[in-house]
Amino acid sequence: MTSEPRGGRGRLAIVGLGPGAVGTCTPDVRTLLVAATDWVGYGTYLDLAAAIVEPTRAQSLHRSNNRVEADRARFALDLAADGHDVALVSSGDPGVFAMAAAIMEQLDTDPDPHRWAAAEVSIHPGISAAQAAAARAGAPLGHDFCVISLSDNLKPFSIIERRLDAAAGADFVIALYNPRSRHRPDQLDRALAVLGRHRAPATPVVLGRDVGRPDEQVRVVTLDDLANQRLQAEVDMRTVVIVGSSQTRTVDVPGDDRGVWVYTPRSYPD
Amino acid sequence: MTSEPRGGRGRLAIVGLGPGAVGTCTPDVRTLLVAATDWVGYGTYLDLAAAIVEPTRAQSLHRSNNRVEADRARFALDLAADGHDVALVSSGDPGVFAMAAAIMEQLDTDPDPHRWAAAEVSIHPGISAAQAAAARAGAPLGHDFCVISLSDNLKPFSIIERRLDAAAGADFVIALYNPRSRHRPDQLDRALAVLGRHRAPATPVVLGRDVGRPDEQVRVVTLDDLANQRLQAEVDMRTVVIVGSSQTRTVDVPGDDRGVWVYTPRSYPD
Repeated sequence: MTSEPRGGRGRLAIVGLGPGAVGTCTPDVRTLLVAATDWVGYGTYLDLAAAIVEPTRAQSLHRSNNRVEADRARFALDLAADGHDVALVSSGDPGVFAMAAAIMEQLDTDPDPHRWAAAEVSIHPGISAAQAAAARAGAPLGHDFCVISLSDNLKPFSIIERRLDAAAGADFVIALYNPRSRHRPDQLDRALAVLGRHRAPATPVVLGRDVGRPDEQVRVVTLDDLANQRLQAEVDMRTVVIVGSSQTRTVDVPGDDRGVWVYTPRSYPD
Repeated sequence: MTSEPRGGRGRLAIVGLGPGAVGTCTPDVRTLLVAATDWVGYGTYLDLAAAIVEPTRAQSLHRSNNRVEADRARFALDLAADGHDVALVSSGDPGVFAMAAAIMEQLDTDPDPHRWAAAEVSIHPGISAAQAAAARAGAPLGHDFCVISLSDNLKPFSIIERRLDAAAGADFVIALYNPRSRHRPDQLDRALAVLGRHRAPATPVVLGRDVGRPDEQVRVVTLDDLANQRLQAEVDMRTVVIVGSSQTRTVDVPGDDRGVWVYTPRSYPD
């Protein structure tokens, strides 16, 4: 990743594409992608962006590996401070387990607080994976809910377990991001062990993978079903898992061939 | 609210406008608003929708009071079952404390399971208030978070207190919806009392009101500041309150006249 200085005050727009389809990317984000001189992001996200807005030859695309978020953040800030008009691209919402916090961390911790003073930073939200999966499944997030990443790259698993225990104990609906990877095949199983202390085996669970993209898969299972290792093996980093509260229900509408709906009622019993 | 039967299979699209500006409403929702024969919703939301897509004379607008969600849900389902192409309009995300769950409840509980079999129901998410406020403030939702409604219209306040206690105890960032109304001026104060058991007085708090609309107000205060009744009095049903975790920080960028950023680091200490 290299760049030429342009001079003047640049702009860093941290944009969220949403699920990845044209129809769910906000006009604001589209406009910023069109206007940017430079797109920065993980290659997969730049491919999604290019399917939404075709980049011109005048635009520079800087693809990075997904694992080096701090480097990507500094590179994007440097470009903007050099006068470029940068779109830093995430899928979903950049404010949820994504690049907005990575940029803030760099602004906060760089030894030179003036280093990126010439960069005008802004953040533009997108539809997050849990929202897209919830909409396909019905309304599982219709009542109080928690959003937890199961990745222990950046936090100890003990804090994840503590949060799962607290959230399940207080009967929140729980959306799990980064539920399972090849490097961490056991995280989901360990999470389910904690949830099983508080939730009935028949609790509805939504598995949403690549929702809003051509390969979309949405399945409604139960907590008990998910104990099955073969089913767990279908869960990966592109899946969001929504575990119902004690109140979450399924509805089977006659004549509706899309399967059951899942929802959490707005009211909670006394 | 009256309607003429049209016959044939109708469509009920439950759509979220997002914060309420043209630039943050997804193209899918815009397309559905254009295509609908009927818009149904709380008057304020239909006004927001009409500012995004100007309704034609051929389209019927059915304005309802915000308090009769069950009636509105049944009316929208009846219209769709009669063959109309209905857009049921919410601001934000209809899946988060909004109409998607209200529709599911009717489908689930009506004594006649075939009553609305002719209505094809779909849900189309929007950017929710917490996401819009978070984006303006920085990245307060960059780590695990909870979303809790403080309204006790539909649940006992004891369950709200239990959830606040659990979420704060497990160090989640907490987004509060419906934090305070004229009818319930004390809910926020009672919530703060619970949060104060777990969080330092200097914990950053984001107050976002009407974010993305012309009257937008975003303020960054502390938990201690918010104990002040005069500040609390500025919080209303159009405000979302985001209370940081123990790790949430502020960043003051030199030369940036927008004030401080607020973010929650992606990593959590061991």
